[in-house]
Amino acid sequence: MAVTQRINGNGYSDTLYVRLQSDLEKAIREGKFVLGSKLPPERQLAEQLQVSRTTVTNAYRELEAKGLVRGYVGRGTYVCALPQPTSVPFAWRGKMSTASLRLSGVPSTAVNRNSVDPKLISFALGCPALEHFPAEEYQRIARSILCRRSCDAMGLGAVTGQPALRHAIAKEHSVRPDQVLVVAGSQQGLDLLARCLVDPGDQVIVDRPGYFIGFQTFQAAGARLIGWDALRSDLDELENLILRYKPKFICTTPSFQNPTGRTLSLNQRKDLVQLAIRYRIPLIEDDPYRDLYFDAPPPPSLHALDDRGVVIHLNTFSKVLAPGLRLGYIVAPENVVELLALAKERAAIFTAGLEQLVVAEMLGSGIVASHVQQLRHEHRVRRDAMVFALRQAFPKTRLTFSAPGGGLYLWCQLSNGPTGIELNDRAIAQGVVFMPGEFFYPEVAGERRIRLCFSGSTVAKIQEGVERLKNALAIAHSSKSLKDPSRLIPPQRQQATKDSSVCSSE
Amino acid sequence: MAVTQRINGNGYSDTLYVRLQSDLEKAIREGKFVLGSKLPPERQLAEQLQVSRTTVTNAYRELEAKGLVRGYVGRGTYVCALPQPTSVPFAWRGKMSTASLRLSGVPSTAVNRNSVDPKLISFALGCPALEHFPAEEYQRIARSILCRRSCDAMGLGAVTGQPALRHAIAKEHSVRPDQVLVVAGSQQGLDLLARCLVDPGDQVIVDRPGYFIGFQTFQAAGARLIGWDALRSDLDELENLILRYKPKFICTTPSFQNPTGRTLSLNQRKDLVQLAIRYRIPLIEDDPYRDLYFDAPPPPSLHALDDRGVVIHLNTFSKVLAPGLRLGYIVAPENVVELLALAKERAAIFTAGLEQLVVAEMLGSGIVASHVQQLRHEHRVRRDAMVFALRQAFPKTRLTFSAPGGGLYLWCQLSNGPTGIELNDRAIAQGVVFMPGEFFYPEVAGERRIRLCFSGSTVAKIQEGVERLKNALAIAHSSKSLKDPSRLIPPQRQQATKDSSVCSSE
Repeated sequence: MAVTQRINGNGYSDTLYVRLQSDLEKAIREGKFVLGSKLPPERQLAEQLQVSRTTVTNAYRELEAKGLVRGYVGRGTYVCALPQPTSVPFAWRGKMSTASLRLSGVPSTAVNRNSVDPKLISFALGCPALEHFPAEEYQRIARSILCRRSCDAMGLGAVTGQPALRHAIAKEHSVRPDQVLVVAGSQQGLDLLARCLVDPGDQVIVDRPGYFIGFQTFQAAGARLIGWDALRSDLDELENLILRYKPKFICTTPSFQNPTGRTLSLNQRKDLVQLAIRYRIPLIEDDPYRDLYFDAPPPPSLHALDDRGVVIHLNTFSKVLAPGLRLGYIVAPENVVELLALAKERAAIFTAGLEQLVVAEMLGSGIVASHVQQLRHEHRVRRDAMVFALRQAFPKTRLTFSAPGGGLYLWCQLSNGPTGIELNDRAIAQGVVFMPGEFFYPEVAGERRIRLCFSGSTVAKIQEGVERLKNALAIAHSSKSLKDPSRLIPPQRQQATKDSSVCSSE
Repeated sequence: MAVTQRINGNGYSDTLYVRLQSDLEKAIREGKFVLGSKLPPERQLAEQLQVSRTTVTNAYRELEAKGLVRGYVGRGTYVCALPQPTSVPFAWRGKMSTASLRLSGVPSTAVNRNSVDPKLISFALGCPALEHFPAEEYQRIARSILCRRSCDAMGLGAVTGQPALRHAIAKEHSVRPDQVLVVAGSQQGLDLLARCLVDPGDQVIVDRPGYFIGFQTFQAAGARLIGWDALRSDLDELENLILRYKPKFICTTPSFQNPTGRTLSLNQRKDLVQLAIRYRIPLIEDDPYRDLYFDAPPPPSLHALDDRGVVIHLNTFSKVLAPGLRLGYIVAPENVVELLALAKERAAIFTAGLEQLVVAEMLGSGIVASHVQQLRHEHRVRRDAMVFALRQAFPKTRLTFSAPGGGLYLWCQLSNGPTGIELNDRAIAQGVVFMPGEFFYPEVAGERRIRLCFSGSTVAKIQEGVERLKNALAIAHSSKSLKDPSRLIPPQRQQATKDSSVCSSE
């Protein structure tokens, strides 16, 4: 060992333990002994250095007193960590999990942050007309509950949810209360389903395009996503995907799908449920928009068409009441609810009590139903306002879409020119934000798609926002034709997302 | 191929495609061709059977019409799933993830369920004196927020939390608002920390005994738990564990720890933080009880003693206000908050708005501070009532404990006789429930420990509950001495937890 030899060469005597200690300390500080490594046994080092064992023992004790080494009876002396020389901040990144670091590269994060910026008009996130939220009734019922049963509202509640809310939901879906699990919004529902259904490496069939935070949740659990084309909704294609990929489950939004607005017909629904039963593939029905139709209600839910218990129904009060309530639910067979509840306990123990009790009363007294009726009317007005404003602002050669029969979104196609991500950068500078279509695909696609939510903004804001969008598109187009000499060269994808003035050759 | 030969032996003619189809159908239904397997190519089968290719083609088309096989151009014909013969319920268990099924064996689940049963007196869960919750103020502030800013309360909020609440918390902890992440109770905080810090196989040091749902959360993320003895709180032992196991992080509750009630001294805290800095081990401080002291406040938090940013501080309003609010927070360096926020987005998007805005106002206006003062007094009364009742009801030979200086729990030791789990079974039958000590250990230990929460029940209920506990213990002891002839034989651990009349030889 190099250090030993170097020390040996110095010729230590019994009284020179301080020099031995100091040389060892230098060697440790210079990293010649790494953290956790064993120093030579005292007797052996004494023999090598031709010093008495006491010299070595004393040197080791000095080092131990300085916190540089640590002796263990019968095992020897080991190098400890060194105090860091200066007060450098702790290097956290090296401590984070692989899964966590993977998330930090997700491009939708910045857009999500802008989406809640009050300075921007937001067409980005799916939000109902909150101006019509029955705040007065909510407040009245909340007060009455806090007076009558404050401990129920504020105490520790059952993991599965408040019995009153489970009963009210069970009644609406004609199931037993034990088949209902209350969750903090449907995103928590998707997370619990991911934890309980996905083993790393599982294949999962999702709508393509579809809800991207759901995609990320399944991927974080280790799933590989297979896209089923949402606009075609071809059951033959789905059967081929099932045969080819043997998926762990299928997750779909059958009514006014996010982002496309498509709704499956009754026959498609029946075929889909039969396919799931025949191939024994669990079918997750994420159905937040079904009551938000403008003309006719959609066909029965997949859950209602299922007589085998192959469908898990996921829903939320975010779109029919308010996202800020953080209240949703899962309807599933009892044994599935039990396992999901165990996962929920580890995720958040239980769900806030007051909201649950208030919403249970709002369901029972018909306030939710009459509010949804009002939303249908108001959302239709907003949809029409956005459709009109967009058709006024953009020629069909620039932006195309079809008006959906329900839900919250317009799914638009840009003609050549900026991509959705490029346009969004320009739009944010103009004071309006939306969701680029790229986010909604499990693979690279949808560069010239954008999703606009029409329900969350008043008519005046819709008009103003579309005006800003028009300016953004004009700037994007003019900067393309004026400034960019490289527009005939196909750009790298990475460049395109970074520099909004780069034009694509597509 | 057996099936082909059998068919061959029958000698088909061109007109006999129906018989060929029926034989193939039988073979498929009997499982001779499994799901997804390929039928012989048409030409090959025709040659083998010495029939025309049209016969085989027609037979395959019949099978396809029945949904039993499926032809792909250029790839051949494959066996599809069979419709199930009867309406048997879907076999969900086979679809659940390994991690999910592992959770289903956790023994604490049943106790947690009983803990919220309103028919029982519960000493089980950690709950503050809810009878003193400032419901009137809460209701008044909530009404004012719903009148003034209903859209802020009910709309989509930032993942990291409402700015008003982040500011209020930052002020209390002398940090920047960007260092605060609002979470839905500290359990969500632990879950997010597990997702962001634990890679499968990581070692994690936890208090032993300690908070068991936290244990399960870390384990679900793939961590191996190493227990640091909470009652000894020996920093030398901790350093040995660090050197031996090289843990990913340390998680501890320094003040009025759950379940033991121990509080680290100022020197222990300083040494602990220095140890974490020297060995570069992240230190998670789970600190929900620090304000709930009876005599003197505990020493400064680990976070306050840390000048390197090695400590992540986790806290909740569950113990100082109400668990039903589902509101807690993490204080951490900004880059850690950013990664935790990404994980939170996938777990639940964001946290309910109204509670956040109300609690922010309650913090700012001093309502929380004066409520905590009231809780200190009330909890002390309840602690004294439980200590008195227990000392009256049980001789020291049966039950020992020491009264803690804060927090919510008495950590008791049973003498020989029933284990904690056995006694809890008897207790539930008598109408009172508590937490068996076994749950609080990462390994098998604590059989004769029990945790009693004194803060969540009124004095009258405490007296009644202790009376019921006394009866339960008497019954457990008498059934042991009267009924069980095997009491001199050491029981199997599994038997002991199943049958409460089995006595342990310990």
